[in-house]
Amino acid sequence: MSGTRGLFIPGPTNVPQAVRLAMDIAMEDQRAPDLPSFTLPLFADVKKVFKTEQGQIFLFPASGTGGWEAAMANTLSPGDKVLIARFGQFSLLWADMCQRMGLEVDVVDVPWGEGVPVEIFAEKLKSDKTHSYKAVLVTHNETATGVTSDVAGVRRAMDDAKHPALLFVDAVSSLASIDFRMDEWGVDVCVSGSQKGFMMPAGLAILAVSQRALDMRKSARALRCYFDFEDMMRTNKDGYFPYTPPLHMFRALRAATDLLLAEGLENVFARHHRLAEGVRRAVHAWGLKLCAKDPKWHSDTVSAILLPEGFDSAALVRHAYTKYHMSLGMGLNKVAGKVFRIGHLGDLNEIMCLTAIAGSEMAMRDLSVPVEAGSGVAAAMEYYRGAAGSTALKNAA
Amino acid sequence: MSGTRGLFIPGPTNVPQAVRLAMDIAMEDQRAPDLPSFTLPLFADVKKVFKTEQGQIFLFPASGTGGWEAAMANTLSPGDKVLIARFGQFSLLWADMCQRMGLEVDVVDVPWGEGVPVEIFAEKLKSDKTHSYKAVLVTHNETATGVTSDVAGVRRAMDDAKHPALLFVDAVSSLASIDFRMDEWGVDVCVSGSQKGFMMPAGLAILAVSQRALDMRKSARALRCYFDFEDMMRTNKDGYFPYTPPLHMFRALRAATDLLLAEGLENVFARHHRLAEGVRRAVHAWGLKLCAKDPKWHSDTVSAILLPEGFDSAALVRHAYTKYHMSLGMGLNKVAGKVFRIGHLGDLNEIMCLTAIAGSEMAMRDLSVPVEAGSGVAAAMEYYRGAAGSTALKNAA
Amino acid sequence: MSGTRGLFIPGPTNVPQAVRLAMDIAMEDQRAPDLPSFTLPLFADVKKVFKTEQGQIFLFPASGTGGWEAAMANTLSPGDKVLIARFGQFSLLWADMCQRMGLEVDVVDVPWGEGVPVEIFAEKLKSDKTHSYKAVLVTHNETATGVTSDVAGVRRAMDDAKHPALLFVDAVSSLASIDFRMDEWGVDVCVSGSQKGFMMPAGLAILAVSQRALDMRKSARALRCYFDFEDMMRTNKDGYFPYTPPLHMFRALRAATDLLLAEGLENVFARHHRLAEGVRRAVHAWGLKLCAKDPKWHSDTVSAILLPEGFDSAALVRHAYTKYHMSLGMGLNKVAGKVFRIGHLGDLNEIMCLTAIAGSEMAMRDLSVPVEAGSGVAAAMEYYRGAAGSTALKNAA
Amino acid sequence: MSGTRGLFIPGPTNVPQAVRLAMDIAMEDQRAPDLPSFTLPLFADVKKVFKTEQGQIFLFPASGTGGWEAAMANTLSPGDKVLIARFGQFSLLWADMCQRMGLEVDVVDVPWGEGVPVEIFAEKLKSDKTHSYKAVLVTHNETATGVTSDVAGVRRAMDDAKHPALLFVDAVSSLASIDFRMDEWGVDVCVSGSQKGFMMPAGLAILAVSQRALDMRKSARALRCYFDFEDMMRTNKDGYFPYTPPLHMFRALRAATDLLLAEGLENVFARHHRLAEGVRRAVHAWGLKLCAKDPKWHSDTVSAILLPEGFDSAALVRHAYTKYHMSLGMGLNKVAGKVFRIGHLGDLNEIMCLTAIAGSEMAMRDLSVPVEAGSGVAAAMEYYRGAAGSTALKNAA
Repeated sequence: MSGTRGLFIPGPTNVPQAVRLAMDIAMEDQRAPDLPSFTLPLFADVKKVFKTEQGQIFLFPASGTGGWEAAMANTLSPGDKVLIARFGQFSLLWADMCQRMGLEVDVVDVPWGEGVPVEIFAEKLKSDKTHSYKAVLVTHNETATGVTSDVAGVRRAMDDAKHPALLFVDAVSSLASIDFRMDEWGVDVCVSGSQKGFMMPAGLAILAVSQRALDMRKSARALRCYFDFEDMMRTNKDGYFPYTPPLHMFRALRAATDLLLAEGLENVFARHHRLAEGVRRAVHAWGLKLCAKDPKWHSDTVSAILLPEGFDSAALVRHAYTKYHMSLGMGLNKVAGKVFRIGHLGDLNEIMCLTAIAGSEMAMRDLSVPVEAGSGVAAAMEYYRGAAGSTALKNAA
Repeated sequence: MSGTRGLFIPGPTNVPQAVRLAMDIAMEDQRAPDLPSFTLPLFADVKKVFKTEQGQIFLFPASGTGGWEAAMANTLSPGDKVLIARFGQFSLLWADMCQRMGLEVDVVDVPWGEGVPVEIFAEKLKSDKTHSYKAVLVTHNETATGVTSDVAGVRRAMDDAKHPALLFVDAVSSLASIDFRMDEWGVDVCVSGSQKGFMMPAGLAILAVSQRALDMRKSARALRCYFDFEDMMRTNKDGYFPYTPPLHMFRALRAATDLLLAEGLENVFARHHRLAEGVRRAVHAWGLKLCAKDPKWHSDTVSAILLPEGFDSAALVRHAYTKYHMSLGMGLNKVAGKVFRIGHLGDLNEIMCLTAIAGSEMAMRDLSVPVEAGSGVAAAMEYYRGAAGSTALKNAA
Repeated sequence: MSGTRGLFIPGPTNVPQAVRLAMDIAMEDQRAPDLPSFTLPLFADVKKVFKTEQGQIFLFPASGTGGWEAAMANTLSPGDKVLIARFGQFSLLWADMCQRMGLEVDVVDVPWGEGVPVEIFAEKLKSDKTHSYKAVLVTHNETATGVTSDVAGVRRAMDDAKHPALLFVDAVSSLASIDFRMDEWGVDVCVSGSQKGFMMPAGLAILAVSQRALDMRKSARALRCYFDFEDMMRTNKDGYFPYTPPLHMFRALRAATDLLLAEGLENVFARHHRLAEGVRRAVHAWGLKLCAKDPKWHSDTVSAILLPEGFDSAALVRHAYTKYHMSLGMGLNKVAGKVFRIGHLGDLNEIMCLTAIAGSEMAMRDLSVPVEAGSGVAAAMEYYRGAAGSTALKNAA
Repeated sequence: MSGTRGLFIPGPTNVPQAVRLAMDIAMEDQRAPDLPSFTLPLFADVKKVFKTEQGQIFLFPASGTGGWEAAMANTLSPGDKVLIARFGQFSLLWADMCQRMGLEVDVVDVPWGEGVPVEIFAEKLKSDKTHSYKAVLVTHNETATGVTSDVAGVRRAMDDAKHPALLFVDAVSSLASIDFRMDEWGVDVCVSGSQKGFMMPAGLAILAVSQRALDMRKSARALRCYFDFEDMMRTNKDGYFPYTPPLHMFRALRAATDLLLAEGLENVFARHHRLAEGVRRAVHAWGLKLCAKDPKWHSDTVSAILLPEGFDSAALVRHAYTKYHMSLGMGLNKVAGKVFRIGHLGDLNEIMCLTAIAGSEMAMRDLSVPVEAGSGVAAAMEYYRGAAGSTALKNAA
């Protein structure tokens, strides 16, 4: 295969040169006397990405799934009741994990393509006079359907109901790409991973936890060792770790955090919005629909695109992979075969998104999906021409 | 700092060029149609490193500690009784984890510097007519004291007692360095990690599990999600994973496994023995003692060296780090301040070990430890000259 | 700047992962006893890329310009007469170098956009009864204008005239991309460089020289040391070099040659033709013209595209660089400001070329060049859909 | 082969991580509008390494040999007379090149093991009333014999004789390692290369040229194109190059220059002296002699060590390579078979030098060279213990 394979899945995302090089180092001594001078400022700067001052950062050698488990095992006990909405494969898996961990899970099923139903949550919270809900769980960005939910809205609902439950957010595919404000939104536990907005390989779960949630570790009766907050806190405070840390991943995290802070989080969010909007213009020009049912749900990190009835999106993804050397995201579970996904997050720019659009368009036409030649690319290009202007020029300066 | 820092800790070990390069790649699509053609042979070849044909390999994004937790959570239930000996920081931590996971732990305390007391285990197993022990836990190589235990001996004791308990082995700092034979020794669960004999960065727990132990997953009542064998098995059989896998680490594992199998496991073991023996000759020439109390406990991957009364090994390690740019292992817990450790495992050869010995010698003399100038290096050199011969020449051919 | 910068200049070209990694190694001993087991097969395999069995390979740490100098200094003497056509910046510079080296240069000026005038050469060779021409110089691919010349045609003209002059070919931007046949076409000296079809960084001049040309080194009176064939031949025959060789570049050359031979030279040529044709379809759809005046001159490695009167191509290239993070080729010398160039050679595929086309299209529209939105991309996509088929699928297998 | 191969030749030297990573990048556009913002400060900072303010830097894609040719071709004409001393393989080759370039070469032969005979030069210069010498050539550090010459002494001799000849210095194996002061010593042309003190791969000739020497380019009649100063100066002044530059090497040069200036040149020199002195202590303890006949000639970058009569140093070097995985320098030409060389320059520290000494010692004892076990290492260790102190600690801070 010649040339670079296009990687347009919603994670792992493309690793920038600076992050790749940061990992390409000789192994380090995890008990070196000067290690804290590296790790302590890293914890401090990662907090900025979560927009939290009061939260505590945890870095577990694990995937985002491990991050979920860590979040719940340290704050909840079997039998505790949690509220969650299910509207895609990842919110579904999270709810499933809650059940397996012995929690009582109040699942609100919502059509795939919608997000967290803030009104229903509001009602339930208001009705919960006994404060039986110990936690409210929000999937900020449902990667399977390309739907972004309203975390601030859920917080308002909780505040309106004066409900003391903890607010958990899965921000795996939103953090460092879509606006997220831990302190302002009163998020208690935010779970993220390395392989999305942080533009690193998979393998690091990155959490931020509020003081209130940290306090729960004393009463939480879930068994835990590997993911224990207490073990981490005892050693992290001095810049060390309870077991051998993946220092090459921390070096990558340092480089990634530097890139994000140098670009500026607001610029990062604006860039993701701009790139996403170009993809959405292409979808519109193709005459297709997004899985996300309403603009308010549109995700700026991934677009799940519905193929017309009678076309198999799994075949499309395979075809693009084989013929055009590009990876698109498949439809999962309920939307398997129905949607294909373009991941547009991480280390990406306008011309890379055009590659994704052009490749998708060729693949669709090959499979006789009725889209007009050049239509999607033209729509995206015209949008990018106008939108790229100021920011790109500023970045280039 | 100029030049390469010497890394002589018992893990993370030096990463060979081939492994380093294997990780230095563009991100991959974890759902790509051709991924199984990479992952399935990888599972097959990793089995060879464990010397198992019937065992099943698990690769968790985690440290070795996560590997322990996975091992126990999938096979045992709270209240189950296990037998373990405690004779160093890592066997201590393992026993501690067992307790935290709700197991009933029969701990046999043994002086630090000795290994698993096979005779005591034999007696206990014989006396256990009700087969109350569900598992026997053996730390193959206690990294804190440089002690290697007799796994085959424990198996014989179990067989003699006709005891049906599972045999668990922590081979984190022995696998791929010291002779280990999963099938021949009847090991049920072997836990290892990426950052020792596999010569990779930390972050991958590598397990091999017998069919008998796998069957226990149905009855094991410990809560588990992230480390669940069932989730892994359901997807691994087709070459995929239940959550985003750290593909860059798998690429490294492929390269490391290739290196190990190309050198030949028996040659790898012989090389580790040769390198270790040189270090031991140096210790002897210095007039010092190993923490390991008897030659039968001598570890071929790490030597814990006792400083004479009145000298602080922590100061020594710091001094060597600062003045000679080399990392030695500190003493941990009971032997803190008393021993320093030279890790001699992984991608290492004779001249690298001489660096470790020479650096240790200079640092000891700087701190007035009474060792004769050049004594340790000379002893090791003379040994290596004779021992290096055939193998090194053969390797070079 | 986020994302990958598009590199669509006619060299240096994109370096494939395998070549990049091949260079990323510890330094090697250039007098090591086992070096010849690496270098001698490398020489042998590089010959295959030139399609020569009788030629000798020279690898000079130099740019292609150094390769030209080496070629002439070892075979010609001041005062010798050579025949060359001038139709672009690189044929112009070559002719210029000949003059500076004291040769008598018969320059045939041809409009920029045409190639070597085979008929005029034929006539001149026939008229040259005294065989005053010592060498005929052909720029196989004029990088400045995107024009490929007919080397086989020149050979036929020489044969028809029974002219004994040496045939020199500058294949810097054609070798390993466009069909070139050293032995079949009777080429005596072929000069290439590392940073084009070999997909390496700049810094290595790669030459193939016929036995007949080699023999000339005894009579050639040009002063030379660094570029002396004799010094090279004396040491190269045993696998060594007269001065410190850039071994990291040789490792890259090994990797690049492996990639080329694995893909198959005919497939490499077909891929370059396919990619180039897509770009030409886009140019046509834009309503623009190539600098190359006739399809027979069309280069498969670079397209020089004429902007309409009144537009400044230098501004366009700058604009694309700044706003769209992509490098296009500028117009040079006579065509400065008039053409911009898309390099489509090396480690490239269809979706990468579409990026180049889309980016060029956006930049032109931004500067009010009258091209229709999406027109070029659509034309290229439709072509690639049909053409990519069989080969791409085969490559992916 | 396991572990790192020891590289103790006098170049190419070990490449530090920062330099290695600097080269591991995507290819760049050599005509990019922002390239000068990288290249112009690079030229400025490289001047600091030469300790010149008035000199001009030239970066040729070439080896050091190419640097010699560039130096002479741009300043001298065939028939010009130069004065040079010959006392090792590299001064010999330089004199040879002068002859091949048509210069009249006054060669002063000096025993190998001595350096430039300042007194003889002084006499010759004084007698040269007609100023027939156009240039005086000094090999600052003769890599073959480990001899450093007195450049400042030659300058004084020239000044005493009021001789206007240009002063050329080959500093390939001294620059950035041994004290060199271009402006203070009135050096007109200094030639260096990338693969020694600059700690880069081979392939870049690095020159500094005084204004006086630059002026000679107008009258110098030697034919030159590739190495022409004028072409370089015309484009370099704006930050560009006359032919495709090896930008990855420039990135490496940037990183290397940063490392050198961060350590501080005086610290770099002190470190090289310290490392070299340890090697010399070892040689003394072995009861062997250096090729350098007097302490005043001792080179701080390479030690050429004489084996006792009857031993073959070539066999020793091969043996160390095969059995101990380390590269030592061979004896060349007159001292072939008689000396082996330890290169101690570039990215090196004390423990690495001890590796070189220990490996040499084992190899010598294997071949029955009568050196006492541990003697050399012990002597070096004791020296380093005292000497390493302050600087190493300061560096680590």
